[in-house]
Amino acid sequence: MAIVLSRRITILSKCIYTSLPFAHSSSQNRVFITKPLHHFHTSCLNKHLSVEVEICKNGVITRRFMCKSAIDTNPNSSFDPKNSAAKKFILYSYWQSSCSWRVRFALNLKGLSYEYRAVNLSKGEQFAPEFEKLNPLKYVPVLVDGDVVVSDSYSILLYLEEKYPEKPLLPVDPQLRAINLQAASIVSSSIQPLIMLSVLKYIEDKVGRQAQLSFAQSILDKGFLALERLLRDISGRYATGDEVYLADVFLAPQIYIGKARFNMDISKYPVLSKIHKSCEALPAFQASLPERQPDAQSR
Amino acid sequence: MAIVLSRRITILSKCIYTSLPFAHSSSQNRVFITKPLHHFHTSCLNKHLSVEVEICKNGVITRRFMCKSAIDTNPNSSFDPKNSAAKKFILYSYWQSSCSWRVRFALNLKGLSYEYRAVNLSKGEQFAPEFEKLNPLKYVPVLVDGDVVVSDSYSILLYLEEKYPEKPLLPVDPQLRAINLQAASIVSSSIQPLIMLSVLKYIEDKVGRQAQLSFAQSILDKGFLALERLLRDISGRYATGDEVYLADVFLAPQIYIGKARFNMDISKYPVLSKIHKSCEALPAFQASLPERQPDAQSR
Repeated sequence: MAIVLSRRITILSKCIYTSLPFAHSSSQNRVFITKPLHHFHTSCLNKHLSVEVEICKNGVITRRFMCKSAIDTNPNSSFDPKNSAAKKFILYSYWQSSCSWRVRFALNLKGLSYEYRAVNLSKGEQFAPEFEKLNPLKYVPVLVDGDVVVSDSYSILLYLEEKYPEKPLLPVDPQLRAINLQAASIVSSSIQPLIMLSVLKYIEDKVGRQAQLSFAQSILDKGFLALERLLRDISGRYATGDEVYLADVFLAPQIYIGKARFNMDISKYPVLSKIHKSCEALPAFQASLPERQPDAQSR
Repeated sequence: MAIVLSRRITILSKCIYTSLPFAHSSSQNRVFITKPLHHFHTSCLNKHLSVEVEICKNGVITRRFMCKSAIDTNPNSSFDPKNSAAKKFILYSYWQSSCSWRVRFALNLKGLSYEYRAVNLSKGEQFAPEFEKLNPLKYVPVLVDGDVVVSDSYSILLYLEEKYPEKPLLPVDPQLRAINLQAASIVSSSIQPLIMLSVLKYIEDKVGRQAQLSFAQSILDKGFLALERLLRDISGRYATGDEVYLADVFLAPQIYIGKARFNMDISKYPVLSKIHKSCEALPAFQASLPERQPDAQSR
């Protein structure tokens, strides 16, 4: 299948959300719409259209992109949205970074292949001027998708979910969606930042080596117990049922790290143990393991 | 206007995303769809329908809700979706909690009024059995929207954005959307968790009172400098242009707290200073200020 440019339209920017029909006036191949573009995108999908979209501001084209139909109605076309998208991805990653690991796992789950570019954090490559141009915040992961650059694992995963929803990382049910986001937040806000190298180094320097480990273990225990409570009544094979979702993407690497680096006894957390076991069996998780990355031997 | 139950349908759960037409078969008021519900919702809006939706799993109805059209085609109806939604909201909040503050600010920006329920953290009310039933994780904020309960400010804001997109907190442009999410993550993962009371108490106990303040200031400085770099080239009156978005919702309370509680000199961060000034002028922000909350005098 191949992308068919069914028509070419121009969309007024700053259009606001109303429930007027998708396009409320058109002239000379120009359609004025009053919905955010993601609604427009959905409408395209409903109508099986692929269109080239131009965003105008005061009559000047400020952006141009494709709004694709995932299935094309032309039986002779050969477009594969996943492969097409995959070619564009570059992931800047470090094998031992748990945040990079989440993104590798999610990309694998969505079946989106990518070019791996290692940034050696132990050698300070994140501070190199070339990398700083890409990410002024000087950390990994960074995902490059065509002309869009996204840093921060949570932001990358939400971006991917929105742009490549075919294999969803968020379930349909609003309550389960919210619980997936909550679990992700517990890992990304209440656990990972507090056991980062810089924080543990501060504690080691100021308080002592033993305090460092017990501090990390207490953070992990508090977070793991919260996750147990959150997921107790809804988990299946995975965190929120029998499908793997965003919560698992955040949980599996964190549990693995808790066990491997901080000597946590995972059997104390039955829900997390079960999730860990289910994820370990997934090829998408196995391929995302730190030791399987191209830069795994770098120190 | 009033909600019109145009038709009653049943949706197969676990339907997966494809581009098949929205409803691909129907019989006896039962429509089988193959899209996630948020796409279905958009289709309802496009078609000006309001329907009652039932989710079935193995033939048993597991959930039932309204999928509403924001504008009803019946000229004699009187449905106001904002007010209708507002009646359902309950926010469990503490006046001094910066995470609660974000949600208050966002609800005000979206024009969604809510019932305020104070949870006095200084008296340990978050550990009360009645509150634990609502949120086993024992923290605020918690938003109750009908039968959906969401904890964690980031999750609440993403939930609100998805369900009540009328006044969007995320811009249309994918790069700007991503930058809003990144800014939110810097605040929620790289700043706030490290200057929480429990962490600062640990440092005070183990290292000393003076170390506590300098630790907090170094965290704030690092985060604020990262935000300056991230937003330098794209900020307008607000973080990502001249519209107030998610980044501002996270930033404004954090800057305020940095200044008021940790003696940060905000003038060192010109972009953040500008954003702070713009937000301070907004009635939605003013109404969300800690000192204006019903529990402001409680200690």
